[in-house]
Amino acid sequence: MRDALFQRTLCLTGEDAEAKRAEIHAYFLATFDRYEQLFETLVADHAYFVKPIALRHPLIFYLGHTATFFINKLMLAGLLQERVNAQFESVFAVGVDEMSWDDLDDAHYQWPSVGEVMAYRGQVRETVCRLIQTAPLALPIDWDHPWWTILMGIEHERIHLETSSVLIRQHAIQYVKPHPAWQACQATGVAPQNQLVKIPAGDVALGKDRSASTYGWDNEYGQHKVSVPAFEASRYLVSNNEFLGFVEDGGYATDRYWEAEGLAWKTYSRAIHPTFWVKQGNAWQLRLMTEVVAMRWDWPVEVNYHEAGAFCNWKKAVTGKAVRLPTEDEWYRLYDFCNLTEIESGKPACANIHLDHYASSCPVSEFRQGELYDVTGNVWQWTNTPIYPFAGFEVHPLYDDFTTPTFDGLHMLLKGGSWISCGNEALHSARYAFRRHFFQHAGFRYVLGEVGSKVPTSSYETDRLLSEYAEFHYGDEYFGVVNFPKALADIAIHAMGNKPACRALDLGCATGRATFELARHFDHVTGIDFSARFIGIGSELAGQGVLRYTLIEEGKLVSYKSRSLKELNLDGTRHKVDFFQGDACNLKPLFSGYDLILAANLIDRLYSPTKFLGSVHERLNMGGILLIASPYTWLEEHTKSAEWIGGFKKNAENFTTLDGLKEQLSPHFRLIGAPRDVPFVIRETKRKFQHSVSEVTLWERIV
Amino acid sequence: MRDALFQRTLCLTGEDAEAKRAEIHAYFLATFDRYEQLFETLVADHAYFVKPIALRHPLIFYLGHTATFFINKLMLAGLLQERVNAQFESVFAVGVDEMSWDDLDDAHYQWPSVGEVMAYRGQVRETVCRLIQTAPLALPIDWDHPWWTILMGIEHERIHLETSSVLIRQHAIQYVKPHPAWQACQATGVAPQNQLVKIPAGDVALGKDRSASTYGWDNEYGQHKVSVPAFEASRYLVSNNEFLGFVEDGGYATDRYWEAEGLAWKTYSRAIHPTFWVKQGNAWQLRLMTEVVAMRWDWPVEVNYHEAGAFCNWKKAVTGKAVRLPTEDEWYRLYDFCNLTEIESGKPACANIHLDHYASSCPVSEFRQGELYDVTGNVWQWTNTPIYPFAGFEVHPLYDDFTTPTFDGLHMLLKGGSWISCGNEALHSARYAFRRHFFQHAGFRYVLGEVGSKVPTSSYETDRLLSEYAEFHYGDEYFGVVNFPKALADIAIHAMGNKPACRALDLGCATGRATFELARHFDHVTGIDFSARFIGIGSELAGQGVLRYTLIEEGKLVSYKSRSLKELNLDGTRHKVDFFQGDACNLKPLFSGYDLILAANLIDRLYSPTKFLGSVHERLNMGGILLIASPYTWLEEHTKSAEWIGGFKKNAENFTTLDGLKEQLSPHFRLIGAPRDVPFVIRETKRKFQHSVSEVTLWERIV
Repeated sequence: MRDALFQRTLCLTGEDAEAKRAEIHAYFLATFDRYEQLFETLVADHAYFVKPIALRHPLIFYLGHTATFFINKLMLAGLLQERVNAQFESVFAVGVDEMSWDDLDDAHYQWPSVGEVMAYRGQVRETVCRLIQTAPLALPIDWDHPWWTILMGIEHERIHLETSSVLIRQHAIQYVKPHPAWQACQATGVAPQNQLVKIPAGDVALGKDRSASTYGWDNEYGQHKVSVPAFEASRYLVSNNEFLGFVEDGGYATDRYWEAEGLAWKTYSRAIHPTFWVKQGNAWQLRLMTEVVAMRWDWPVEVNYHEAGAFCNWKKAVTGKAVRLPTEDEWYRLYDFCNLTEIESGKPACANIHLDHYASSCPVSEFRQGELYDVTGNVWQWTNTPIYPFAGFEVHPLYDDFTTPTFDGLHMLLKGGSWISCGNEALHSARYAFRRHFFQHAGFRYVLGEVGSKVPTSSYETDRLLSEYAEFHYGDEYFGVVNFPKALADIAIHAMGNKPACRALDLGCATGRATFELARHFDHVTGIDFSARFIGIGSELAGQGVLRYTLIEEGKLVSYKSRSLKELNLDGTRHKVDFFQGDACNLKPLFSGYDLILAANLIDRLYSPTKFLGSVHERLNMGGILLIASPYTWLEEHTKSAEWIGGFKKNAENFTTLDGLKEQLSPHFRLIGAPRDVPFVIRETKRKFQHSVSEVTLWERIV
Repeated sequence: MRDALFQRTLCLTGEDAEAKRAEIHAYFLATFDRYEQLFETLVADHAYFVKPIALRHPLIFYLGHTATFFINKLMLAGLLQERVNAQFESVFAVGVDEMSWDDLDDAHYQWPSVGEVMAYRGQVRETVCRLIQTAPLALPIDWDHPWWTILMGIEHERIHLETSSVLIRQHAIQYVKPHPAWQACQATGVAPQNQLVKIPAGDVALGKDRSASTYGWDNEYGQHKVSVPAFEASRYLVSNNEFLGFVEDGGYATDRYWEAEGLAWKTYSRAIHPTFWVKQGNAWQLRLMTEVVAMRWDWPVEVNYHEAGAFCNWKKAVTGKAVRLPTEDEWYRLYDFCNLTEIESGKPACANIHLDHYASSCPVSEFRQGELYDVTGNVWQWTNTPIYPFAGFEVHPLYDDFTTPTFDGLHMLLKGGSWISCGNEALHSARYAFRRHFFQHAGFRYVLGEVGSKVPTSSYETDRLLSEYAEFHYGDEYFGVVNFPKALADIAIHAMGNKPACRALDLGCATGRATFELARHFDHVTGIDFSARFIGIGSELAGQGVLRYTLIEEGKLVSYKSRSLKELNLDGTRHKVDFFQGDACNLKPLFSGYDLILAANLIDRLYSPTKFLGSVHERLNMGGILLIASPYTWLEEHTKSAEWIGGFKKNAENFTTLDGLKEQLSPHFRLIGAPRDVPFVIRETKRKFQHSVSEVTLWERIV
């Protein structure tokens, strides 16, 4: 290893801008250099062009990519006006999707030579240095600061320093060679017997503050505070030796230890042992980044989430105890329990992290941290928490797809960092997540305890219709048209006057805004819609208080949006609503006894409006109010024309839907006041909207 | 016949409202009585329930229908608040569509008895009388006056007096009986030899003035002035004897005399002679309304349009002369040439009309009118003019489908009236039209002469998309959003400044509003659209200056709308525009040399926007301007996503359509000024609109 410690991620506050400029310059160069040095472990140019694994580009891409990333983001930020090399900046812009292990890459690429890419990196280096040396700089550098993109580029390169080291480790051994700057740990011995350590219950606070002085990725910000119940955690990371028990007990051959996705991966990959284990005759060896060595039984095993999970299931079966992976919250509890703090600048970390010690793992018993070992460093530790946004999450406008696509329940958080986790990666607040089949320098620690709190649904609703309705109900106003469900609820509440306001029904509630709005006045409101997908949005909001969705801007471009009940002043209604799937033309008897029924934009979407209109009085208390709103957009696809209640010639004369409503409701209702128009707007794209005008009528049940 | 003359249609102006009230009362009763008296020619109740012809209801319907019509229209007008008999007023509201001779009626009806219907008529009679005696009345009664509907009901009954008399004439002879009030003419003799009378050229003015003092149907109003060239007209209507020549010469068996639709009718109906001719052994007899008599060879033949036309074609073939049916204009020229005037109130008409003389036709030589006979009266005369609206046509709001469905090129005008044409039917301004296969008391007169002026296209555009675009381009403004094509043309014209303004191209012109608008500034403007249907609208407007379309109000309810270039202050541009069908991605070379090209809402509808953008400069003069407006609504159905020019991630970053435009146009254009937003609204129904915002960019050709 080199003598000097690899520079820590920077503090971005301070008074002395010129000193900060110099720090950033050094930080950029240190990172840019170290990244290039990693590629010196390749034996020759041809090694750059062979794919280490089928699912990723060859390493030549990653050599160019981190440079291109700088240029692309600096252009976006307006710090650069001209590209360095437009062609390269297209070729090196987009990696292969790591999302799916069965998504084979069949693209054909014409890669530049190593010399050309290195020359390009030289140009980028000069460009970025010139920028750092000359661009105006005022402190602090925060999220909105133009220089944030410079840090973004550096931290991005540090991520690739790690992921490229994994690819090099996955490269066939003939393509790599040892390198004095990348020396593996030499220590090894007998693995310690693992033990369970009792961790008392305690509160943890996750989420980086927006005023924090270091760079952070979007997913780190926000707040998440929770009480973690007591649990037990293994003192050590699971070593190769400990994992051998699973392998030798037929763990890879026993399907019941594997969850469905893991089983599919195992079948596809034909895995029968950890990926970096190499069987040499009867002996196990271990593949490191640049060499194959005798098995290091006391080093942490490196596996993907599926393997870690299968191990836990095996151990649970064998021991009869509730063995499982920890949650993210529990990892933070371990961190606090062991009294850990951020690594310091001036001295090596008390952890195998940040390249402070080795270019490899080391024995699980080497770095003691309180009562445990390797809470941070050595290898990343899989959790059973899919990554999700903290309350207050926002995308960064210049990198809006850094995290958002991974809020899908399929990307699992890893914590703690590895021997090569540097910069932001090594911080307490770091949050990285990968697909369950993915390999990193990652292993695990197991815990015993009840399953912790459920992770909130975090995926962004991308279904076009649901997103449009989410925005329609909870989003912005367009063309000055006020929120429609709220306007209807206000009309309904006003019409109720001093009438009893125990129960209200929002029939055809769609995504449920009016349900919440009515709950400002009623003791309880039920939202019912034919679409389970629609009511899912309402339920999610009632449960979590927050809703996330994407909005189509133009073509395939989207923006990310979230809305909370709190922002809408509806937080107090969360426990007064419920949602059910149901058919307004054939509603279960239990849905009755209401003081108000709201039917917003419903009647022209029913297969039989007459069935609804002919029986709705049965569900309403005497004196109760029925509010009907509709733009009367009769469409054959929703309502066969024989079922329309108006909008046709009847006895040779125009017969409107309002005529039909009067005819059908008159046996039990009286019309209160005059019909009124209430407009609504549904956003389809940034530039396209449906703009309609609903006719609102109020009907009082009198018979 | 009865002694007193059947009351003429009323003068609706005057000073003495009470006297007018009495006149209207008498007019109503006279009509209501006479109509009931017609049904006295039926032998017994069962005759009411057998259909005279397959395509129409049995006569019981028509007995009830004219009464129901009063109630329905008076309710609509607000003169009545309650129905007389809701069930009857449903049963008797809608007749069978007479539109198509092969549209068989398979509905099942439960008709009330004759006694019940007569009792119902008694109630309606009382109701209308009470109304006439008591409702407030201020003179004059005009189109907007509530009492107009009373006149509408009376004149409607007079129409049915005639059409029911035709049905009775078509009824099997055993169902009908002679009646002293309905006595046929007894006179008959040898038919006169027909002769051609030279009619000198002359101007005619058609169209009833809105200030006229008599009731009129919607289609009569407006203006149509034309110079009719000289022609020759047969002195007499074609008699049964003259038509016999055609029959005996094998006219019905000779397909080439028949136009396609007539041939289809002849095949379907198996007609081999006029429908009211009856062959008894070798002798021809004639069916009158209530009896079959020996053939009246000197009476006018009664035929449908197809038979009249076939006769002309036969005569043309036989004589080598341009024999044909007259136009409506020519009929008015005959009227003027013969110095005819409206029939008087106090004495019998000099024509077999208004039931003044007979309940049948009479010899073609009986009523001389100037140099001709029977220009009015005896039987209706087919013209070869399909009914069309005069300039200034409007529907009556309480009877908007009286004429509009017949503006389809399939309904031919008949002129002159028959022996039973009464009230409005007998006026100079009367305009009635029927399908070509239809029978009335109708025959014809033939003329010789060049074919007159073409009848304008008059049908209302009902195609949903075309109508929406017609309204978008030429109709009203909604939500305060100004007319979009005009706004774009204004931007373009302003941008032109003092640049040459010879030729402009409106590419993707749709229905062409911007084409006309640009022609305010440019010497010539060409509109091109991929859709021939769209440019048809522009062409029609350029040709006729007027456009008619229906707007969907709600469900199947429509309103009727027309717009003229005059109203839009664009009349002066009619001769500066032309329209072509064309593909913006593959335009013919001749479309070049323009000073301006407008591409409004085009690029996101092209299959290859790149082909368009890459070649559009070739069509523009140096220094010329390209205006692109688009909401960038990329849809796979119009443009495969591989062809989108923006609206996706490119090299991992957002790449908007504006980015794509800049990239693709930069080789030949410079962007002038900043992009600006121009909103537009497309009306779908009375309550549903598309509301979009186009981004407008101006590009000057510099290379």
